[in-house]
This record gives sequence, structure tokens and C-alpha cells, in this order.
Amino acid sequence: MPLIECVPNVSEGRRPEVVAAIVEAVRRVRGVRLLDASSDAAHNRTVLTLAGEAGALTAAVLALFEAAIGLIDLHTHRGGHPRFGAVDVVPFVPIEGVSMDACVALARDTAAAVAERFGVPVFLYEEAATRPGRVNLEAIRRGQFEGLAAKMADPDWAPDFGPPHPHATAGATAIGARMPLIAFNVNLATDRLDVATGIAAAVRHSSGGFRYVKAMGVRLEDRGIVQVSMNVTNVEKTPIFRVFEAVRREAARYGVAVLESEIVGLVPSAALVSAAEYFLQLQGFSPRQVLETRLRESGSS
Amino acid sequence: MPLIECVPNVSEGRRPEVVAAIVEAVRRVRGVRLLDASSDAAHNRTVLTLAGEAGALTAAVLALFEAAIGLIDLHTHRGGHPRFGAVDVVPFVPIEGVSMDACVALARDTAAAVAERFGVPVFLYEEAATRPGRVNLEAIRRGQFEGLAAKMADPDWAPDFGPPHPHATAGATAIGARMPLIAFNVNLATDRLDVATGIAAAVRHSSGGFRYVKAMGVRLEDRGIVQVSMNVTNVEKTPIFRVFEAVRREAARYGVAVLESEIVGLVPSAALVSAAEYFLQLQGFSPRQVLETRLRESGSS
Repeated sequence: MPLIECVPNVSEGRRPEVVAAIVEAVRRVRGVRLLDASSDAAHNRTVLTLAGEAGALTAAVLALFEAAIGLIDLHTHRGGHPRFGAVDVVPFVPIEGVSMDACVALARDTAAAVAERFGVPVFLYEEAATRPGRVNLEAIRRGQFEGLAAKMADPDWAPDFGPPHPHATAGATAIGARMPLIAFNVNLATDRLDVATGIAAAVRHSSGGFRYVKAMGVRLEDRGIVQVSMNVTNVEKTPIFRVFEAVRREAARYGVAVLESEIVGLVPSAALVSAAEYFLQLQGFSPRQVLETRLRESGSS
Repeated sequence: MPLIECVPNVSEGRRPEVVAAIVEAVRRVRGVRLLDASSDAAHNRTVLTLAGEAGALTAAVLALFEAAIGLIDLHTHRGGHPRFGAVDVVPFVPIEGVSMDACVALARDTAAAVAERFGVPVFLYEEAATRPGRVNLEAIRRGQFEGLAAKMADPDWAPDFGPPHPHATAGATAIGARMPLIAFNVNLATDRLDVATGIAAAVRHSSGGFRYVKAMGVRLEDRGIVQVSMNVTNVEKTPIFRVFEAVRREAARYGVAVLESEIVGLVPSAALVSAAEYFLQLQGFSPRQVLETRLRESGSS
């Protein structure tokens, strides 16, 4: 069965009854599995993780919009995370037995349906982007909800679907397709922020590092240590074991040891299996040797 | 859903029509999934890997016996692998949501049913063993089919279920419960068999090494290298990353590098995830963060 993940980010993380209503709207959609729902009060944002086939996921996203638009008014929304829509961003992620192209097509279909049904302007992003300047979500969202009407007055920022102006209360939405994104942090046995910042600069794409790594150095005040905080946006092409080894080597150059690493949120099994293969020097290993993979393939009878 | 694996070893690996008939008998049982069937002509033996719940697995094992007893006569069986029964050995393995105790109970129930229905004597082994001398399969099978009548004449070798003498054509069977067994080999960049043999002795339980490791040094003639060939019989308690690191350290003592490792057959995802956790120094990681685990937990809707 082709399996696609969908990770809608909704601009509400403080009112539990609103979050519950939105989650419930999604849960009622047949054929969709709700894998996770995490609310962050400081960000005032909730991230849902859904899985299913294309048609069911589109239905779930439409149900999500219907609930969110009825309950969220961005004029009164405050939070630490940048946002420009009640449903802020909706990425589709290929997990198993499905191509990126299929996820791009799904993003387009869903975007068209959202715009038509709710009059919300939609920008396609990442792999679904229709021009280079819209690949990056940050560029699309720059100016946030408050600056959106002015931004969209520029024809360069006409949406891919929907009206050429923001929805009155729900703003706009970015819908796209991307590889699974892994939040991977490495904690260092030092309180020197310059070390974490230097390592982040060495491994991240924007300053010459790995193509699919975003990174910054941050201070973990309560623990008196620093962290290289990373997003790996394509773990097939930039595997986490390679990123980890690079961080470790860079840290050694400052005489600093790696204390530990952490993965935040969900990670595809393949990202961990590839790390095991690397460190164990496994040759000729096939994913079909993983018992659980074989079980899924065999289906139930 | 509780998930148990069952890995029957059948004494036929040369006559494809016989193997096909036995496989088909198992495949017809509802609720059982056939994950793998591998025949080895040199060993004249076929290993099936089944998965399912307790009741369905017992039904599958009974169907397997019915087919095998009708088609295999051990008097005419020749092969490189020790064997004492047409259905030689039937281990039950806890995979998910099920205890070892439940698998021991399942082994007993299945053994009783096999003995009653087919008049085949059954010895319980490994975790299901009723006395210390029967934990080890090799001890039970010593003397093989040809020596079985004489062996069972000794009251010490009365079976746990069934008649106190071999079945005329099908011999006897060992039925038991054990942890998943992983065949894990490490190839060395040398042709010195003494190095592989010395490392095997260092890491295996029988000579003072890890409790759940069986190991021997073997020569890979065609490649001009040697191998530390291992079975890890409990990867929760003796994880493969620890075994691998020990082999690597021991090899370094001889000035020999590890060329590669290999896993033969199926491996539970957890064994690889634990290796990734170890080498990546992952802290606070939960199996529930593995996307596929979350998918299984969420079921389908």
C-alpha cells in the first residue's frame, strides 16, 4: 500500500478545546491515521502527523481547514513561531511505495481544492514550488500574516491557487512536498557557544556544508552546555551518520567531546538502519531483511 | 496485536515438489503469514518463517506435520545438517506485544497436540525445556535419527510428549521457545584462520565471552579471507553493536582490520535501531519515535 505522510502546522497551540476540535475533525476522516499531535504554547502552534493514501489525506486536509478557519482568527494570534495562515503549512512526504512526483501532484490537487472550497490563497513550496523563489518556505512566509496583504499586492506574490489577496481571518497557506525532515541535535561537552556556532557553520548547506543540512548553534541554558541544532531535510542523500561523524570531527578540532545526540519527533526506520549499516560495516544488507518490513510486505491474511 | 514468529526446520531441501507441498499446506492456514521459505540442498533442509497469533501458529504447525510426515522418510534422508525428525525443530519467538512465557506455553500446547495427533515424540527445548540437559538443541539431537531408538531406550531421554520411541519414519521433534536469533558474521582482512578462531573464542559464551554469543572461525576459501561466524541468541541482552566492537578490538590486537560484517536472514528492527542509538550516542530515544512503529501502533482505520 502506498504510504504518504502529511504534517499540517496549525496556528493554535494554547486553547486546548480548539486543538481538540481540529484534531477530532481530522480523526473522523476514513482511511487516515493520526500518528501524532503536538502543541507548543510558546509557539502557539500545533503540528499534526497524519498517514494514509492520497485521496484520504486530501479529505483530511479539507476537514482540517474547515475546522481551523471556523476557530482561528489570525488578527488575535500571537506566538513565537513565524506564521501567515490559520493552517500555516501542509507538507506531503513520501514514506513507502510512492514517488516524490506523486506527492507533488497530491500537493497541487489539495491546494486547488483548498483554494476553491475556502477561498484561501495557496502557495506551493519545496518540491512542489512553481518557481525558484518559492522553494524555501521562509521566503514565502516572510512578512507573516501582518504583512501579507501588502506582499500579495505585488504580482510576483500572486498565489498558485486562490484569490490574489489574503483570506480575511485565515491568511494564506503553503502546501508542498518534501522528503522526511529529521530534527537531529548534537550536544557538546562545553559551554562555548562559539564552538557550536562554528560547527553548525561547517556542516550546514548555506555556508558550504552538507547539501541537506540546516544548522545553528544554541545554548542550553539550564544544562550549561551548547548544542548543534540541525534539520536534515533529505536523510537518503545526506544520512545522519555522516552528519554526526562530521560534527564529531569538527568538535575534536576544538578539543570538545560529543556528549550525546537526540532526534526530536518521528524518524523513518531507514534513517536508523542506514546508521547501523554504516557503523557495523554491514555489506549486502537489504531492507527486506528487517523483520518488520517483511511483515508489512506480507500483509495480513 | 501480539505477534509471534515460528521458524520450523523441515528435513527436505532437495525435492522441490515436496517443499512446495509443505509450504502450501502452511500457506492455507488462516491468520498465518509466511514470511520466508529457504531451502538448502547441501543441508537437505528447508527453513520456514511464519508469523501470527498463537492459535493460528499451532494450526500451521499441525498442517506442516501432516504434510511432512506423509512425504518424508528419514531412513532415506541424507544431508549435511544434523537432524532427528522429518519436522526437525520448531521454535516460537516473541516479536511484539507478547512475553516469553506466552511462547513457552504455546510450545507446550503445540507439542502436546503434535504428539497426540501424529504419535511423534516431542522434546521441549531452550526456554521451554523441562530440565537443564534439554535446554541445548544440540544435546537433544545428538546421535541424530539413526541413533534415536537407542537413545530413547534410556529413560533419561523419555520425551516430554508422545511415545517413548521414535516415529517410524518421522523420528522425533524439538519444539521450544527462544529469543530472536541473529546470524551475524564479521569478515576479516586476513587469511589467517587462527585470528578468526582466536576472536571467536574471545567473544563466545562457551569459552568466557558474551553470554548470548555462539561463534567459530571459518575460512572463506573463494575470497581468501576468514570470518568470525556468530549466532547472537538474545540481541536485547547481548546487542550486536557490542559484539561488533569487541570483535574489532580483538582483531586490532592481531593487527587485523574488519573488512565488513553481514547479517544472514531476518533481523528485528530493534536490533539495528539499538546499534544506531549506540554509535550516534542518541539519548532519550524511544522506539515510538520510529515512524513505522507508530504506524503499526495506530493500526488502520
